[in-house]
Amino acid sequence: MKRSNRLVILTEYFLENPRKHTQLPFFVNLCNTTKSSVSEDLDIIEHVLKNQQLGYLERTTGAGGGVKYIPEVSSSRNKQFIEKLCHELEDPSRILPGGYLYMSDILGDPKQVREIGRVFASCFSKLDIDVVVTVATKGIPLAYSVASFLNVPVVIVRRDPKVTEGSSVSINYVSGSSKKIQTMVLPKRSLKEGSNVCIIDDFMKAGGTINGMISLLEEFDAKVQAIGVLAEADDDEEERIVTEYTSLIKISNVDLLHKTIDVQNGNISLV
Amino acid sequence: MKRSNRLVILTEYFLENPRKHTQLPFFVNLCNTTKSSVSEDLDIIEHVLKNQQLGYLERTTGAGGGVKYIPEVSSSRNKQFIEKLCHELEDPSRILPGGYLYMSDILGDPKQVREIGRVFASCFSKLDIDVVVTVATKGIPLAYSVASFLNVPVVIVRRDPKVTEGSSVSINYVSGSSKKIQTMVLPKRSLKEGSNVCIIDDFMKAGGTINGMISLLEEFDAKVQAIGVLAEADDDEEERIVTEYTSLIKISNVDLLHKTIDVQNGNISLV
Repeated sequence: MKRSNRLVILTEYFLENPRKHTQLPFFVNLCNTTKSSVSEDLDIIEHVLKNQQLGYLERTTGAGGGVKYIPEVSSSRNKQFIEKLCHELEDPSRILPGGYLYMSDILGDPKQVREIGRVFASCFSKLDIDVVVTVATKGIPLAYSVASFLNVPVVIVRRDPKVTEGSSVSINYVSGSSKKIQTMVLPKRSLKEGSNVCIIDDFMKAGGTINGMISLLEEFDAKVQAIGVLAEADDDEEERIVTEYTSLIKISNVDLLHKTIDVQNGNISLV
Repeated sequence: MKRSNRLVILTEYFLENPRKHTQLPFFVNLCNTTKSSVSEDLDIIEHVLKNQQLGYLERTTGAGGGVKYIPEVSSSRNKQFIEKLCHELEDPSRILPGGYLYMSDILGDPKQVREIGRVFASCFSKLDIDVVVTVATKGIPLAYSVASFLNVPVVIVRRDPKVTEGSSVSINYVSGSSKKIQTMVLPKRSLKEGSNVCIIDDFMKAGGTINGMISLLEEFDAKVQAIGVLAEADDDEEERIVTEYTSLIKISNVDLLHKTIDVQNGNISLV
């Protein structure tokens, strides 16, 4: 097979299989070529991915050696994306009762959701994560996007037990902002004991929901390695229960009366 | 820029932007090259995509002309995937009370979810679809996957109204299998009147939920162009309310006592 054809095939393979370790003989076979040709192809792809700020190829030598595409995009690319997002969200017509923000259009756009997932996955790229956990409903698309870049499965915590999932563990927790007692459920079968977990959600006010997830995950002896929220509302910062997390944007000074709002970068490190 | 680098950049662009119409000058500028070089690059990419059964490039000439990647994969690729899925699902330990099947591991795997979405998007490739609609919770990842290949947004129907979405339209419907009256809600702001809609869900028994969605969508004057369900349980076929749909797999003869089950291809056309 010609180099030009091989480059298209290999590029497609890496983008569809992030973080998957693949040995060189697989590519030699796939492209019907030699090991040294594949090596040169990888050099070209690596060079372009780095230039485009889309990550890099992790290559290991020796027995069992091979290559893995790490979709860790650059901070400057992340920064650009988050600033665009802030700009879209600071529209006052997005303000909803209770100090929430209408974000369903952004969360409903698969392309934006994919970009948000890419940002989180880049942030958490060096961590050891086995599974992404979220709570129904709005965090789900974000969780899948993050998981697709980290090459791990998703587990969804529900607020109502469903007959279709077998036996489950449930906890009660106090919602941070409304102080109501709520329930969370996770099927026993869905999460291995002792997993390394990344929690993803769309919105955090006082942090009650995320705190509830942490308690529930303790029942599975899970280790929470990272928490990512798309937006945090910083008005409740003093009361906040969750302190270690990564947010992409921060919403503050929501004024329902005058219809004004401040939207800024969250606490994500962009350097 | 050299051809080898251009091929990596263009392949990445098409895979990240399915069904997006892009004019050639964009690529000329992106790759700092000539129109005729880009044309040759597109020939190579098209050739490989077709060979890999991953779809094709739709090219239009004249003023406003350009190129669009249509991720319409081949029936034989779809068939292979569905057969693998059937094999995974026919494990009797998946049988749950009520004749449901445990599918959370498959629905929790972003790679499988992406493949399922690719199959539906290929099936519905020729239809005019503006938006994918699903109902919380399990259909959500599938809906996003289909939508990402169709390059359209997702709208999520909920079973409980949420304060964070503004005013909404709700309907009551009768669940097909349990005969219970249930509620479905869709925020007014989330769907334009007269949209062309594709409904996606994970599981269909008698079809009550999907029928409920159809009724709700009538309130928005939406036109349902396609209905896709991952799995249908064919034991209820006589009572079924929904008749025009595409299913990838069909579950039958669920025997809770003897723990046996039949899993076959659904009604999807694989020729």
